[in-house]
Amino acid sequence: MQFGIRVLGVHNGWNGLINSKVEPLTRYSISGILPRGGTILGTSRTNPLASDEQLQRIHENWRKYGLDALIVVGGEGTLSASLAMHRTQHLPIVGVPKTIDNDLNGTDVTFGFDTALSIATEAIDRLHSTAESHDRVMVVEVMGRHAGWIAAGAGIAGGADIILVPEHPFRISEICKILNHRKSLGRYFSIVVVAEDAHPHPDEPFLSDEESSSIYQHTRLGGIGHLLGKKIEQMTGIETRVTVLGYTQRGGAPTAYDRLLATRLGIKAVDMVRAGEFGRMASLRGTKMVSVPIEEAVESIKTLDDDLYEVAKVFFG
Amino acid sequence: MQFGIRVLGVHNGWNGLINSKVEPLTRYSISGILPRGGTILGTSRTNPLASDEQLQRIHENWRKYGLDALIVVGGEGTLSASLAMHRTQHLPIVGVPKTIDNDLNGTDVTFGFDTALSIATEAIDRLHSTAESHDRVMVVEVMGRHAGWIAAGAGIAGGADIILVPEHPFRISEICKILNHRKSLGRYFSIVVVAEDAHPHPDEPFLSDEESSSIYQHTRLGGIGHLLGKKIEQMTGIETRVTVLGYTQRGGAPTAYDRLLATRLGIKAVDMVRAGEFGRMASLRGTKMVSVPIEEAVESIKTLDDDLYEVAKVFFG
Amino acid sequence: MQFGIRVLGVHNGWNGLINSKVEPLTRYSISGILPRGGTILGTSRTNPLASDEQLQRIHENWRKYGLDALIVVGGEGTLSASLAMHRTQHLPIVGVPKTIDNDLNGTDVTFGFDTALSIATEAIDRLHSTAESHDRVMVVEVMGRHAGWIAAGAGIAGGADIILVPEHPFRISEICKILNHRKSLGRYFSIVVVAEDAHPHPDEPFLSDEESSSIYQHTRLGGIGHLLGKKIEQMTGIETRVTVLGYTQRGGAPTAYDRLLATRLGIKAVDMVRAGEFGRMASLRGTKMVSVPIEEAVESIKTLDDDLYEVAKVFFG
Amino acid sequence: MQFGIRVLGVHNGWNGLINSKVEPLTRYSISGILPRGGTILGTSRTNPLASDEQLQRIHENWRKYGLDALIVVGGEGTLSASLAMHRTQHLPIVGVPKTIDNDLNGTDVTFGFDTALSIATEAIDRLHSTAESHDRVMVVEVMGRHAGWIAAGAGIAGGADIILVPEHPFRISEICKILNHRKSLGRYFSIVVVAEDAHPHPDEPFLSDEESSSIYQHTRLGGIGHLLGKKIEQMTGIETRVTVLGYTQRGGAPTAYDRLLATRLGIKAVDMVRAGEFGRMASLRGTKMVSVPIEEAVESIKTLDDDLYEVAKVFFG
Repeated sequence: MQFGIRVLGVHNGWNGLINSKVEPLTRYSISGILPRGGTILGTSRTNPLASDEQLQRIHENWRKYGLDALIVVGGEGTLSASLAMHRTQHLPIVGVPKTIDNDLNGTDVTFGFDTALSIATEAIDRLHSTAESHDRVMVVEVMGRHAGWIAAGAGIAGGADIILVPEHPFRISEICKILNHRKSLGRYFSIVVVAEDAHPHPDEPFLSDEESSSIYQHTRLGGIGHLLGKKIEQMTGIETRVTVLGYTQRGGAPTAYDRLLATRLGIKAVDMVRAGEFGRMASLRGTKMVSVPIEEAVESIKTLDDDLYEVAKVFFG
Repeated sequence: MQFGIRVLGVHNGWNGLINSKVEPLTRYSISGILPRGGTILGTSRTNPLASDEQLQRIHENWRKYGLDALIVVGGEGTLSASLAMHRTQHLPIVGVPKTIDNDLNGTDVTFGFDTALSIATEAIDRLHSTAESHDRVMVVEVMGRHAGWIAAGAGIAGGADIILVPEHPFRISEICKILNHRKSLGRYFSIVVVAEDAHPHPDEPFLSDEESSSIYQHTRLGGIGHLLGKKIEQMTGIETRVTVLGYTQRGGAPTAYDRLLATRLGIKAVDMVRAGEFGRMASLRGTKMVSVPIEEAVESIKTLDDDLYEVAKVFFG
Repeated sequence: MQFGIRVLGVHNGWNGLINSKVEPLTRYSISGILPRGGTILGTSRTNPLASDEQLQRIHENWRKYGLDALIVVGGEGTLSASLAMHRTQHLPIVGVPKTIDNDLNGTDVTFGFDTALSIATEAIDRLHSTAESHDRVMVVEVMGRHAGWIAAGAGIAGGADIILVPEHPFRISEICKILNHRKSLGRYFSIVVVAEDAHPHPDEPFLSDEESSSIYQHTRLGGIGHLLGKKIEQMTGIETRVTVLGYTQRGGAPTAYDRLLATRLGIKAVDMVRAGEFGRMASLRGTKMVSVPIEEAVESIKTLDDDLYEVAKVFFG
Repeated sequence: MQFGIRVLGVHNGWNGLINSKVEPLTRYSISGILPRGGTILGTSRTNPLASDEQLQRIHENWRKYGLDALIVVGGEGTLSASLAMHRTQHLPIVGVPKTIDNDLNGTDVTFGFDTALSIATEAIDRLHSTAESHDRVMVVEVMGRHAGWIAAGAGIAGGADIILVPEHPFRISEICKILNHRKSLGRYFSIVVVAEDAHPHPDEPFLSDEESSSIYQHTRLGGIGHLLGKKIEQMTGIETRVTVLGYTQRGGAPTAYDRLLATRLGIKAVDMVRAGEFGRMASLRGTKMVSVPIEEAVESIKTLDDDLYEVAKVFFG
């Protein structure tokens, strides 16, 4: 208790406020969590506005626990729902931006992203270290449902040869051309980083209907990496291997950068609560903590910066 | 040059001795390689005994470079060929055991294994750290063509819930039973580690002919993990995610354990050369470096120890 | 060669331009350096303006190598000298900010800092993980000659209990008061992070003249951490242990963040050369690459942000 | 509960059995501890045999908790006391060898050692990566009170130039001779690894009485590294920097090797309890778990193997 504020933790997002899963957070209960990935509070995809009954229970619990404000931590979905709760239910809410995908507007960066980036980069490093041992194409599938931040960032940081992002549909013929060109220069080893939601240009589909539907249904099982690897091998004749990082990118000890960012955002959020700045989100701008309207953050997905995409392409081939 | 010995490095295995890719290894040329994965000498799958012409060129180069002995570093394939060269061509050869798969007899452990183990374990750790965030089954596909050492070792070290190895065909019904049992106890989060060559028991195949043939042809593309994940999701209704570590397990900075082991094996190999112990392999037994006949190492694959498999099963469910 | 530009690497800073240690940098010569710490070009503390003879040789070599522009990578010292060379010798120079200390103005952050931060944070994590095993005060001495960025950043990210920085002289009595207070609450384990140049407040010196002079002469040998540890033990009676990270903070694989930043700065520097923006430095502002006058970067040391220092103090006690 | 065995955890060693700090260990209470360093049970240096009153309380608690056997985890001190309790008090005790120092007989290796080794090696790697940036001697002080296992192991794995261990008193003149020789060959960068308890040969002391007494009193504050660094700088004129790893070597996520070893030892210890093999210790011999008399483990400190010391010296100079 600092500033005379009592802090409660709500479990599993809005679900916890509906079902009374609320517990005090004390110095003791949070001891030791700094270096751990994941969340001690759990998550859910509960939409608080789904029914009047839910809303009623939220208001009841709000009174029962004597809440003065709610700090909501999450990405686009969570913050959008929170904004609606603020507007329609008049709940005093402050947002904190968190998503490994970095696809949220209103802030320079979201926490979780730097850790995902570092894990994906480390994987690329490991593949690189076998370059002299193996003449192969290595395909690495990384996260990125709507935006290519992880693919571009890790691809640049890890020195990938080709980087495929959802924002820019790829042509398999161009990929093979680059790989064959490298081979002609004596470079048999190439690394292709592909975001899970990257997809072929409609002008040049390389998937059968069945494959395409399989990807659509099972992208989270890591479809695109394997299909791409198979296609590259067929078209270039170069042996290809596939790595799918999957949820390893969401876990592990957070980087120092992410911890520092998260700590600063948390302190800013408390300052915002004390100042009554509701309906707004704590945000990093340059080196400073600021507050921005939540709507600024959620009105559209923050897709990959053009500048960064240009950097990603500089090293192609 | 120590003990008056000049050291040459042969590039790309037997291929280098056939095609005269041989260079002096000096303190300067090897400076800085200790913390790096892979090999500065490259590899190939060249079989030296494939033709008389090759054998002739090997003998010519042997004389040309004034070789007194050859230290061969590798796994079952490399050492078998080397033993044949020693026996039929009378080349004075000393072997050093190296494979990340640890499936070589004649030594307690091979170098490369501890590093692969540590990478796979770290991936499982990262998945674990999101256990409270997500109610899911996580499938992790690790290397292990003929033996389940990495799967069992990393599965135990990482606290996996189910471990599938090539030595013991699995029944998908049993896997789902364990996962459903865990779910009934309120544990929605489970980790399944599967070796790339693990396969269903013939009594209970779960693959269509097409899938099976697809795996057969493309195992290295990470087939089993995805097929297993798909099946688990279908049969249990629990969301499933897949990670395929692939070649990341072969790279990265070697662990201290592997470097210490490799250094000691290297020194032992030099001692063996000086003592004329040819046709033998440097080996770790307990804490000591010994020499064993190469044939002891290669007469059969070292499959997973029963004791270790029992440990792997202790934590099931 | 891209944009028709040939790139040469100058070894050991200005020394290389004086002594003709200049070599082409090609895709081949830089292959594999991305994940490596340190520099392949070496460093020196040579001041180019120290003598007319040196200046003459720099101009000679400039002509000899046909240079059109010089990209200079470094911290305050390097950039100050470069600005002087630009002004007095009219050399077309572009600066790139690099120092692990992050004490350079004109840019949000310098590359190298995030890596040092991550290494120091990891060390604090390791100390934390023994908290339940040991009732002790752990003193961790980190780098930071003029500014407390690493101490504050790693201290916050690692959850240190007390953080001492050069910008704010400390009182040993206050430190011991906090440690004793924690002990009275049953927390025998505390972590104190101290920047190498942190020093006691003149009102409350705790060093004998001899100790003080010893630190003055040998700070780089890690003086303050040990003296502080000794004093804490004497004054509180709590066992104290000391870790001095030293140059480990300067090495190792750079973080993804640092590599991405360095790559973007490098590309920006090339853009600046092509645009003729000399006497200026590539810089990160928010998420954008910009150029700023070098003098803006070097006119004063960038000391620790007050906001961040307040964050560091939030968790005291 | 497996095999019908209920497991209790005793806090703070013998202290917990004296003061009734005993709690059930369940799947839930130990969930998530695998990747964490330290111990959830705490430690103490309580000697159970110190008084009759203590012994009486231990017997009382033994009956109160209905204990059938006690599994004791620790190094030389803990196991010696346990052996005495087994012999004089007839308690059915099984030992498990744990010490980062690896200085325990009766087993090939103790758990904790591989993790300490990996942390120390990583530190040396980081120093190496700055070799081209800096012309310096780097002194790294590592743990090792009675034995040089960590110094020798990490020194070899990290490619140190000089390794100093407690078992072999060093001569400062020899060290400087090697460093000067390296300098004469153009190698200005050297790494010296020194165990905390390494000491100068009596024939050639380099410490003043005051320094010597200071080390004696404050070795744990990291004395020898700094004194050695200072001396090297004085005698060779080469700039010297010091890193003292301290307790960072005791913490952090354990390596996969250590976790696998600890898990197997734990299972073996349970098997020994069930088989009534008391007064004995679980032990690794080669690849097998065996049991040995505790007295075999504790009759003397296991000092550094001569073979390994020879390896450490191979790379000198």
